[in-house]
Amino acid sequence: MSADKVVLLDFWVSSFALRVKIALLEKNIEFEVLHEDLLGNKSELLLRSNPIHKKVPVLLPDNKPICESLIIMNYIEEKWLSPALLPKCPYERSVIRFWADFVDKKLFEGGRSTWMSKGEALETAKIEFIEILKQLEGFLGEKNFFNGDSFGFLDIVIFPMTSWFPAYEQCGGFKVDDECPNLATWIKRCMERESVSKVLPDPVKVYEFVSMMRKMHGLE
Amino acid sequence: MSADKVVLLDFWVSSFALRVKIALLEKNIEFEVLHEDLLGNKSELLLRSNPIHKKVPVLLPDNKPICESLIIMNYIEEKWLSPALLPKCPYERSVIRFWADFVDKKLFEGGRSTWMSKGEALETAKIEFIEILKQLEGFLGEKNFFNGDSFGFLDIVIFPMTSWFPAYEQCGGFKVDDECPNLATWIKRCMERESVSKVLPDPVKVYEFVSMMRKMHGLE
Repeated sequence: MSADKVVLLDFWVSSFALRVKIALLEKNIEFEVLHEDLLGNKSELLLRSNPIHKKVPVLLPDNKPICESLIIMNYIEEKWLSPALLPKCPYERSVIRFWADFVDKKLFEGGRSTWMSKGEALETAKIEFIEILKQLEGFLGEKNFFNGDSFGFLDIVIFPMTSWFPAYEQCGGFKVDDECPNLATWIKRCMERESVSKVLPDPVKVYEFVSMMRKMHGLE
Repeated sequence: MSADKVVLLDFWVSSFALRVKIALLEKNIEFEVLHEDLLGNKSELLLRSNPIHKKVPVLLPDNKPICESLIIMNYIEEKWLSPALLPKCPYERSVIRFWADFVDKKLFEGGRSTWMSKGEALETAKIEFIEILKQLEGFLGEKNFFNGDSFGFLDIVIFPMTSWFPAYEQCGGFKVDDECPNLATWIKRCMERESVSKVLPDPVKVYEFVSMMRKMHGLE
């Protein structure tokens, strides 16, 4: 790898890696994607770049690794200033960061509990997941984007998670459209964006992946 | 509360609240502390300010709540610029943020597993906790501070956790001094700092608190 090159260690279905791809596209930064096979062997480069967590995404600007998607997004925001993805006001930035943290702590785990369970546990997980969605819907309100008037940091944090929603809906027997209509409209609005549509994984393939994982864990 | 006032919702033994106190002192910001009794009734102000997590710390600059300690620390860094607690270089900032995130994901949980277990589970927890400490020690190396040459963001993130170390040592029968000498020296170095010594809880009281919690959970 030559210097000045931006390399991303990616896994096609990872919502966390998808964040980084959208953020880089929004900033018009060229990058090279190296595909990891997380179900098979992790590459030497991944293990060397992220010895603590051994996870994607890893961004390597000039061969120096940055791990954890929110940290990578902060790096992208601070390294390439335009267009800004975070508001200028420190208080408004803290609100965006609060909800980004909420997504990682609640939405991700809530989704995982939905597709990684069955029977009664799945029913409980589904109720909790819908509750989390409604909290997000409450923050979105009538705004066009989570970030405010325009697509930004928080939209990039949340949107990739929605590529798994059709799989959750199938597992749990519910419809995000019915539960959270504003959120559903926001998802469609984001999909129209080039940075998103360019890198969004095929929902049918995501569902097949989830279904395969459920079989691997004896849930189907 | 009048405007322009900075209020902190605090719990005396919380490492997360302690971060905020040290950061504010480093920035020379006056603030008022409101003590929460997390074991009794949470105040109306806390429940209204942090309806999602219902936890301290909450910082209220001008009556507007900010929750989650790392987010509050980012706010403090961006609102009051001097002295800077984070390095200027985006890559170096990402390294500091990586380890701050590591502390929240690994060190906190590792510590909790130590004081919240007994018997064989405690033995396993202790081995894992020491492993986490050694990872931190590896990053500290021969540096004076985690942040680099001078005390900064990452030191403020990590140091408050060490106020529980004497309690962990007592529960687990180990000595941080023996396992991680550089870390032990760094703890002493931080304690000499005014922003730290001013707000550090008494380790004997922390131990009594941990002991009471262990009894409440049937572990002693």
